[in-house]
Amino acid sequence: MASTIFIQTPFQSKSLNKSLNTHFVPSFKLPVSLSFKPRTAAFSKRAHIRAGLIEPDGGKLVDLHVSEPERELKKREAASLPKVKLTPIDVQWVHVLSEGWASPLTGFMRESEFLQTLHFNSLRLDDGSFVNMSVPIVLAIDDLQKASIGESDRVALLDSEDKPIAILTDIEIYKHPKEERIARTWGTTAPGLPYVEETITNAGNWLIGGDLEVIAPIKYNDGLDRFRLSPVELRKEFERRNADAVFAFQLRNPVHNGHALLMTDTRRRLLEMGYKNPILLLHPLGGYTKADDVPLSWRMKQHEKVLEDGVLDPETTVVSIFPSPMHYAGPTEVQWHAKARINAGANFYIVGRDPAGMGHPVEKRDLYDADHGKKVLSMAPGLERLNILPFRVAAYDKTQGKMAFFDPSRAQDFLFISGTKMRTLAKNKENPPPGFMCPGGWEVLVEYYASLTPSDNDRIPQPVAA
Amino acid sequence: MASTIFIQTPFQSKSLNKSLNTHFVPSFKLPVSLSFKPRTAAFSKRAHIRAGLIEPDGGKLVDLHVSEPERELKKREAASLPKVKLTPIDVQWVHVLSEGWASPLTGFMRESEFLQTLHFNSLRLDDGSFVNMSVPIVLAIDDLQKASIGESDRVALLDSEDKPIAILTDIEIYKHPKEERIARTWGTTAPGLPYVEETITNAGNWLIGGDLEVIAPIKYNDGLDRFRLSPVELRKEFERRNADAVFAFQLRNPVHNGHALLMTDTRRRLLEMGYKNPILLLHPLGGYTKADDVPLSWRMKQHEKVLEDGVLDPETTVVSIFPSPMHYAGPTEVQWHAKARINAGANFYIVGRDPAGMGHPVEKRDLYDADHGKKVLSMAPGLERLNILPFRVAAYDKTQGKMAFFDPSRAQDFLFISGTKMRTLAKNKENPPPGFMCPGGWEVLVEYYASLTPSDNDRIPQPVAA
Repeated sequence: MASTIFIQTPFQSKSLNKSLNTHFVPSFKLPVSLSFKPRTAAFSKRAHIRAGLIEPDGGKLVDLHVSEPERELKKREAASLPKVKLTPIDVQWVHVLSEGWASPLTGFMRESEFLQTLHFNSLRLDDGSFVNMSVPIVLAIDDLQKASIGESDRVALLDSEDKPIAILTDIEIYKHPKEERIARTWGTTAPGLPYVEETITNAGNWLIGGDLEVIAPIKYNDGLDRFRLSPVELRKEFERRNADAVFAFQLRNPVHNGHALLMTDTRRRLLEMGYKNPILLLHPLGGYTKADDVPLSWRMKQHEKVLEDGVLDPETTVVSIFPSPMHYAGPTEVQWHAKARINAGANFYIVGRDPAGMGHPVEKRDLYDADHGKKVLSMAPGLERLNILPFRVAAYDKTQGKMAFFDPSRAQDFLFISGTKMRTLAKNKENPPPGFMCPGGWEVLVEYYASLTPSDNDRIPQPVAA
Repeated sequence: MASTIFIQTPFQSKSLNKSLNTHFVPSFKLPVSLSFKPRTAAFSKRAHIRAGLIEPDGGKLVDLHVSEPERELKKREAASLPKVKLTPIDVQWVHVLSEGWASPLTGFMRESEFLQTLHFNSLRLDDGSFVNMSVPIVLAIDDLQKASIGESDRVALLDSEDKPIAILTDIEIYKHPKEERIARTWGTTAPGLPYVEETITNAGNWLIGGDLEVIAPIKYNDGLDRFRLSPVELRKEFERRNADAVFAFQLRNPVHNGHALLMTDTRRRLLEMGYKNPILLLHPLGGYTKADDVPLSWRMKQHEKVLEDGVLDPETTVVSIFPSPMHYAGPTEVQWHAKARINAGANFYIVGRDPAGMGHPVEKRDLYDADHGKKVLSMAPGLERLNILPFRVAAYDKTQGKMAFFDPSRAQDFLFISGTKMRTLAKNKENPPPGFMCPGGWEVLVEYYASLTPSDNDRIPQPVAA
């Protein structure tokens, strides 16, 4: 995993000369009316040669950290201010905001941003242009906290150990319309949505927005901080490697050889297009995930093995952790996943079946139509500059004894290995068909499931869903 | 009501020379972050002199009627096609679409438009610009209807008497995600939403989109068709009157003198700005409304009295019926109400407290924050060209014995007359304070409530809410 460690180098700017054809023809057909075309259909008009990496949203990466000489001063100020104690997920959002993943957002949303996010999944900038912003990044407080803030226009934000981590300035407190927030973000209000139960149901009835002054970079001290590259650091790394295309793969599950096939095939196709050095950003989500997802530390071990075993080429792959919490909000959330990667320098985004989706918490069906994610992504305001790469379906090809792109003309040759099947195999310490996952990666999974108590195991339905 | 009758005249184009300042300073303060400003704050940069009326969305008013010579041919074709029988509300939408209120939509939404509406409240045009489109205009069919359509790419649409009224062409059938549609449109899935219960809950599990060929203009034969001016007809009427500003007032309730004050005051302010002939479009909604709203025919009688009694000036007022059904979807729906009026030629839109809102169907509170409507409207993509005029609160001024703008510095002088209070008075044939509503208009209300059976009366909580 040497490839993933960030090495500080001087910023290199370079010119990229590239074919005009910078996108794939989508492998799915979007329903297109005579009057309107989804954005994918218009790529050829808009694609153009970029000098250097894709620009961040708003033109400039936001960095909300105070300068090092100011830190002590800010800590002292924080001690004198009204205080709001953050949950671990709130801290993850401070982290996300502080490094500019949500550029040009400069802090927790005020009401105008919250409403634009809920209704339009985008924010209008002063110049009239739009940036995408599909999930509310908000901070909830309760009546008591609101009363304690009184007329102050600044508050200190404390972590779970009461250490001040940031100051929120020029604050605005407004009502937290929980039901409406949930309905418009998830498209359902059914009980059992993991992020909702974790962060909204019992949260306060007010939201507090403002600009962040973050006292020091957020660290988790879990042995994985070195993999948490900021957008600035990722951009420097891509420049250092002379990347002329960056394609991002968001994931929150172990990598099997179907994923790997997709990623190597994407690189091949980018090379065919004329790119000289496409770099893969393998970007596991590192914030909050639901209880039955494989935890980050195990996933990182598994990803490390995938690189060690040579399934992915370390020379052209950067593995890094995306610090965002997971909403499981399907077509709404996939936009956030894509937008944040623009800010990290990616100009290609791979989107799969049912991205950020999950089962309906109450009904026996998926919560979202499996195709809506890529359709919505391809039409989303503010994501026009990003090339969307729809996921091709891979399955186990029995004739080749390996993962291959599914060929419907010989469907009988393919085996779809479900998440449930995977879990059962790993729990029983059995092996999947050879070629499904590299042996080192599989061992990590077996080890993970062995580490669980039986009751934990019962709660893990889909460890390797794409 | 002579002022409202459309008189066919040759189209007159004229140049309007106007001050650059074509908007009011909003009387409410929007929360504005350092990074983003809601659109109202940017008016001064964008306001510009227009020659003629505001352009319709997409540059051109859609007209989906077939030419008169084609009618018989289309009727014969309809007889040979698979058939879908429409509900009365479906027919209202055919009416809305046929006259271009939803320009540039050319028929019931296909999935790409449906998804853009749900997620972004707007549609991207081929040139990359956006038009607003906040409520799904869709046609639901069930499994049997879908099966009967088979492979045909055209279907005939029949009214309740099995008369063919339109052909839907180049059709696309896609899943009807009811829960998601409801959650994203209303911000709740609570049972009891009137439009949902009327049109979605028991509707089919499929939606059918396509382009409309409407065989003949939709008529209701209820004595009110003469008031149903199309956007083309309204535009001609505004031109005929040499309007240099058109301000629209959407309503679905009787007009009291508070409303009238607002409308006359708006005209006064537009004159002060330099407009020579601002025309009011008093535009009651004429499609589906919930059972406890005052029916259209009674409202039209009441509006007629208001003009007869001189409360509004017939010379500068056009009363016409807006054929759309009502969603009661608050901030989402108010965008539709505004957008449709752009297509009818209005460049100013008056927005009140809690537009298109209602009580929460289950909880004891309003469904929407009363201020969200005007905030969302002011930030909505595709409505940049429309000047939003926030409603000033009027109440009964006891010192003057008339409706006046509420002055918080002498709050004790004002009486707020609630809808419940109004209903009680009208039901009991009592009079409201003199100056609250013109006597002729009040008599219509008393007559309406007297016409109801006692059980009807019990279901009418808010006949005159703004």
